[in-house]
Amino acid sequence: MKNLAAILFALAAFAPVTAVHAQNASDRAAIRAVMDKQVADWNRGDIDAFATGYKNSPDILFIGRSISRGYAQMLAKYKEHYPTRAKMGTLTFTDFETQPLDERFATATGHYHLELAQAEGGNADGYFMLVLEKTPEGWKIVRDDTTTLAKSPTE
Amino acid sequence: MKNLAAILFALAAFAPVTAVHAQNASDRAAIRAVMDKQVADWNRGDIDAFATGYKNSPDILFIGRSISRGYAQMLAKYKEHYPTRAKMGTLTFTDFETQPLDERFATATGHYHLELAQAEGGNADGYFMLVLEKTPEGWKIVRDDTTTLAKSPTE
Repeated sequence: MKNLAAILFALAAFAPVTAVHAQNASDRAAIRAVMDKQVADWNRGDIDAFATGYKNSPDILFIGRSISRGYAQMLAKYKEHYPTRAKMGTLTFTDFETQPLDERFATATGHYHLELAQAEGGNADGYFMLVLEKTPEGWKIVRDDTTTLAKSPTE
Repeated sequence: MKNLAAILFALAAFAPVTAVHAQNASDRAAIRAVMDKQVADWNRGDIDAFATGYKNSPDILFIGRSISRGYAQMLAKYKEHYPTRAKMGTLTFTDFETQPLDERFATATGHYHLELAQAEGGNADGYFMLVLEKTPEGWKIVRDDTTTLAKSPTE
């Protein structure tokens, strides 16, 4: 009985750790799925679907030289800057990684590459840090700090 | 009695809102104090004190073209890049703003200006988004995405 008690104690002690690891893995996969869906939506030319990767809230933030705020403004800006399928180009993310903060929040980082015809300004490259929130509708981006490094000539 | 009941009900209904606002204001002030202390520490040439604005954890992240990780690495890099008082220059933050995520996490955004002698490379300007965590030691930076816009000539 003493050994059984020791085993049960050990199982009880490790169970929460295992649960946290399992949840982190499933959260990581869920966040990755949000990004994969954004890439697929973008490359299909569907900005409205792409935008649903963000939380539909007036409080979401886009950080750059100046800050822009809110889902509606974000959607309007995307549509203004990318009015045609050709101007949207082809998006890929690399070095994508998620870093949990707690059960409700996580950050995600990576590089983006936008393949664009020379007539549309040429390729763009940069990196990003996102903050995501686990909402009733799933993981959604609430902060987006994307830095464009340089425009590169189309190969 | 009916009026009193109505007043008590109204007070009860608004109390949580007031409590949240009060806490947000005190958290905002606490985060602002962390930043003010960092500026004062930097401008005194004390990198070790400046670094305590960050959480002493191997998990903190600095996002740029590549990611660097952890308090020890951060401190080593700061000391490598800013080996003398003259190279540290004079730091100011403007447009500083905090945006709460929940009781434990918040983001903060702003612009930095580093006043540097021409011999040290000239002034630097940029903007940042930080993620801060309320730890037992107070609010600490856990993510730092700082973008340098351009070096400007010293006036």
